[in-house]
Amino acid sequence: MRDEMARPPKTNAGYFFEDYRVGQVIDHAVPRTLGPGERALYHALYPARHALYSSNAFAEACGLDESPLDDLAAFHVVFGKTVPDVSLNAVANLGYAEGRWLQPVYPGTTLRSRSEVIGLKQNSNGKSGVVYVRSRGFDQQGNVVMEFCRWVMVRKRDLDAPAPETVLPELKTVLEPGDLAIPAGLDFTGYDFTLAGEPHRLGDYAVGEVIDHVDGVTIEEAEHMMATRLWQNTAKVHFDATFREDGKRLIYGGHVISMARALSFNGLANAQMIVGLNAGAHANPCFAGDTIRAWSEVLDVAETDRPGVGAIRLRLVATKDGQAAGDLRGPDGKYLPGVLLDLDYWALMPV
Amino acid sequence: MRDEMARPPKTNAGYFFEDYRVGQVIDHAVPRTLGPGERALYHALYPARHALYSSNAFAEACGLDESPLDDLAAFHVVFGKTVPDVSLNAVANLGYAEGRWLQPVYPGTTLRSRSEVIGLKQNSNGKSGVVYVRSRGFDQQGNVVMEFCRWVMVRKRDLDAPAPETVLPELKTVLEPGDLAIPAGLDFTGYDFTLAGEPHRLGDYAVGEVIDHVDGVTIEEAEHMMATRLWQNTAKVHFDATFREDGKRLIYGGHVISMARALSFNGLANAQMIVGLNAGAHANPCFAGDTIRAWSEVLDVAETDRPGVGAIRLRLVATKDGQAAGDLRGPDGKYLPGVLLDLDYWALMPV
Amino acid sequence: MRDEMARPPKTNAGYFFEDYRVGQVIDHAVPRTLGPGERALYHALYPARHALYSSNAFAEACGLDESPLDDLAAFHVVFGKTVPDVSLNAVANLGYAEGRWLQPVYPGTTLRSRSEVIGLKQNSNGKSGVVYVRSRGFDQQGNVVMEFCRWVMVRKRDLDAPAPETVLPELKTVLEPGDLAIPAGLDFTGYDFTLAGEPHRLGDYAVGEVIDHVDGVTIEEAEHMMATRLWQNTAKVHFDATFREDGKRLIYGGHVISMARALSFNGLANAQMIVGLNAGAHANPCFAGDTIRAWSEVLDVAETDRPGVGAIRLRLVATKDGQAAGDLRGPDGKYLPGVLLDLDYWALMPV
Repeated sequence: MRDEMARPPKTNAGYFFEDYRVGQVIDHAVPRTLGPGERALYHALYPARHALYSSNAFAEACGLDESPLDDLAAFHVVFGKTVPDVSLNAVANLGYAEGRWLQPVYPGTTLRSRSEVIGLKQNSNGKSGVVYVRSRGFDQQGNVVMEFCRWVMVRKRDLDAPAPETVLPELKTVLEPGDLAIPAGLDFTGYDFTLAGEPHRLGDYAVGEVIDHVDGVTIEEAEHMMATRLWQNTAKVHFDATFREDGKRLIYGGHVISMARALSFNGLANAQMIVGLNAGAHANPCFAGDTIRAWSEVLDVAETDRPGVGAIRLRLVATKDGQAAGDLRGPDGKYLPGVLLDLDYWALMPV
Repeated sequence: MRDEMARPPKTNAGYFFEDYRVGQVIDHAVPRTLGPGERALYHALYPARHALYSSNAFAEACGLDESPLDDLAAFHVVFGKTVPDVSLNAVANLGYAEGRWLQPVYPGTTLRSRSEVIGLKQNSNGKSGVVYVRSRGFDQQGNVVMEFCRWVMVRKRDLDAPAPETVLPELKTVLEPGDLAIPAGLDFTGYDFTLAGEPHRLGDYAVGEVIDHVDGVTIEEAEHMMATRLWQNTAKVHFDATFREDGKRLIYGGHVISMARALSFNGLANAQMIVGLNAGAHANPCFAGDTIRAWSEVLDVAETDRPGVGAIRLRLVATKDGQAAGDLRGPDGKYLPGVLLDLDYWALMPV
Repeated sequence: MRDEMARPPKTNAGYFFEDYRVGQVIDHAVPRTLGPGERALYHALYPARHALYSSNAFAEACGLDESPLDDLAAFHVVFGKTVPDVSLNAVANLGYAEGRWLQPVYPGTTLRSRSEVIGLKQNSNGKSGVVYVRSRGFDQQGNVVMEFCRWVMVRKRDLDAPAPETVLPELKTVLEPGDLAIPAGLDFTGYDFTLAGEPHRLGDYAVGEVIDHVDGVTIEEAEHMMATRLWQNTAKVHFDATFREDGKRLIYGGHVISMARALSFNGLANAQMIVGLNAGAHANPCFAGDTIRAWSEVLDVAETDRPGVGAIRLRLVATKDGQAAGDLRGPDGKYLPGVLLDLDYWALMPV
């Protein structure tokens, strides 16, 4: 090693628990223009088939300007930008709440992200703490296109740093139907069920109904890394096989979310638009070679004030190792080992 | 497993042999808008280099509006949409005939598919039967952009279901040159052979000539799955490593077609546009790790009424395991084990 | 094997050393229109985050029309077109010099390439020789968008062919700041360091400073093949696992360049535009499974005549096997075995 100049380090080591303050606002770096390329890659990386996100003609018939980028693509981009400032030193991504999609992201939109620290709680071991942030994605005009809260466990740099005052944000466990933002102009009265792929409308689903989405996809390293890079999510653990002691690359939880959502087409083809994220847990880690399956449970149904448009609240569960549809937790209340994801969201569906 | 509600199943189990009727018309789901993203992915997934599909400037010099999407991309999209309704319970994809590309698919086109059942024949074992369909792809204005017939062997759900009356469609074994649709305005009189990559024009090829395309590509799981998803082809066997007993994912036959066609650039750089599909057989299965090579045989040449435009009929053979160029069948008349694909098509080439 | 017709072979065997003449100009085949799909794929294949290439809004704020394609994408396309004519029979890619990016490549540009042979020197063993070419990439209006010199060792077809007169071109070992082409309108006076991701401006970097870019990426076969195909680089050794005796596919050196450059964001986020390539060596081969890391050394800094725009000359080194940052050569003067790439380039950075 040659002698390095005495300069401050140029690389970003990320924030540690003691660096956060309640009320702190962080503007995240690297805005991103999304276009038809990201759209095509989404369809190559996931078996996505919801018609509103596949066809301009179908989207226009539903009152939109054109087919938007998948709602989860927008989520991944907004989320990805927060990683270097929020979760670079995170031990775990603990939860989500109050996620709302406020307007469709059309090709050509440039997204950037901003987070506000809304809660802090040091762990009793003194080595780490939980940071609560509300993150928002903005388009180039400054409109909020989506927002969500998440909380992560972050390590301390200096174990002797004093614990901050504990602040726990009040977060809704479930968004009410009135909280959901429905895109201007959306109209499902002329909805084409044949082109959408299934005949089932909101009234055909009953609360408590469990749907096994049947299909499985075996995951490859190249695919999850391409997806995660596409969202400019830079967490080392997803890319560097030498980072974990077991030599495995942990798959970005959002990859599992998108895969499960795409698989849910088979049974929920008409749950077109995701508009609310109530809660989510990454129950177990996912690695290349796992075969992902999915099942959903209908948690609620609701009307909206838009023509033909209803809302359905769904639990989306991703599994591996052939974990049976409908099984979620063991007798101890813990997630079963074959459960990867437990996501609670609202989608819009024709009534 | 929790008790499921008593609701009809929401997922699509696909049609079985006894569900088809001659004359039945099926509108397939999920229209798809194709754009510059799908175009770029095609070039990333296959070593495609035909200049008309690579360069707007080259395409404009040949009288087209701009560079269209690869003809086989249009085929895969139209085909992919038929899978849930035609071949979800198929045992085998038996053949193709009367495939015609009727107009170029430019970026921005939204494709949907419709199939008509044109023939049925129950197998003598009573467990399955052959379904013949003619599938058509339409753009958003309702114009047919391509059409083809295929026949598949489909399982019966109920072995006691009565056999339908046998109807065998009359299909041409080879399209005549006059059957081929040539894009409006196509003109090869100013064709730039240097930019196209080879000097050979139609007159340089002799019927019976065999061309070894030399190059080989070793196939990866991530690539064939991305390609197959991109066409929204959902057949489980391509994605789920737990589906087959041997733990292998069968590669979509169309992936082999596109790979072989792209490899055929080396020797057939000027066979620019595919306009007719006479016949095709997927002779042996292809799996990740196989190294694909290709060779072609000139089957016919023809003139057209367009300036500078000729037609060449080619046999395109994809191989694995180093099967030598020119070798197709064994003494028993069966395809050799190293033959993956035997495709008979018409392409347009400068005279 | 059936008897082949007595026709000249249709496939391209490439040029051999004795085929080149000093002054010879080769127009390379297959122009390529680049668009938003190639842009998205670049972001999926590499962890690219430089803001000017990620966001139209950011690029416009810097005085550009929109966000251009990554400079290295333009390089790879121009380079890829030269492969069938320059390096199909190359034993080694020996060096680069005088590389200049002359104008940004915006989506919609059609690129083609032309090379001029500027030097020849037969090796003393009589079996091969070094060919020096200057390659240029042109847009559809005929403007040169980039140019570079490279020299490759090429085999002779006929060992008895006479040696040509040795001509060694005079090439600059380093471009001077005045040689660099700065895009019209570029203005960094309103540069947003927060959105760009790092606060460091030109004055914060000292000549001799070494920056460890920290992050690592483990390489997959599917990714490097997709990237190399995207640039229509057809060299067999990258795609065919049966080509080398060891069954390995050699990774295109440009894949390593792009990966290292993208990794260098972490510490050099503001080294936005690559405008000059002084020199480059592919020190050791790279294969799938290698984990690539990168470090940079500041070689020089310079002012320009554009508002707020400075230039930084950097050595970019890609490594594998955990080779430490800053280590380049052993006591024998040879590159250490963990060094993959040693690249010397100029980039534009806010002052």
